[in-house]
Amino acid sequence: MLRHVHVFVQLKEGVLDIQGKTVANSLVSLGHDSLGSAKVGKYIQLWIEADSAAGARKEAEQMCDDLLVNPIIEQYRIEVEGE
Amino acid sequence: MLRHVHVFVQLKEGVLDIQGKTVANSLVSLGHDSLGSAKVGKYIQLWIEADSAAGARKEAEQMCDDLLVNPIIEQYRIEVEGE
Repeated sequence: MLRHVHVFVQLKEGVLDIQGKTVANSLVSLGHDSLGSAKVGKYIQLWIEADSAAGARKEAEQMCDDLLVNPIIEQYRIEVEGE
Repeated sequence: MLRHVHVFVQLKEGVLDIQGKTVANSLVSLGHDSLGSAKVGKYIQLWIEADSAAGARKEAEQMCDDLLVNPIIEQYRIEVEGE
């Protein structure tokens, strides 16, 4: 069964988020004074053939380690639908 | 109070997701045969000063319309912590 997996990748604390700062500055200059700060990361969806949600999570973690996430500067969180 | 808002931006159905296809092809070539397909989008976090979660959601929607999302090819979903 194909499992729908959501992967949220963001920069680790302390890593300069240039995109986030640029977005924040632009929004404030557009008049959004209520904005404190912004962070920009990657939202990756994966459809993985797996017998269980846990199995899909394990595959997705391996995919993150193999390709999707740079462990030096990035961290990630996974949600598996139906878990 | 600063509200933590999560914005998930992805391409609309029917829009060619070149990044998603590239990621999928790379993962399969790395041996991840269980992968059906992949989609790549943006994960934007916003910290917004607002009296209520609903107020923060409204501000975030306006920010999406003003800058963060291209309505022609993208769609988005918002989650406000504490909603």
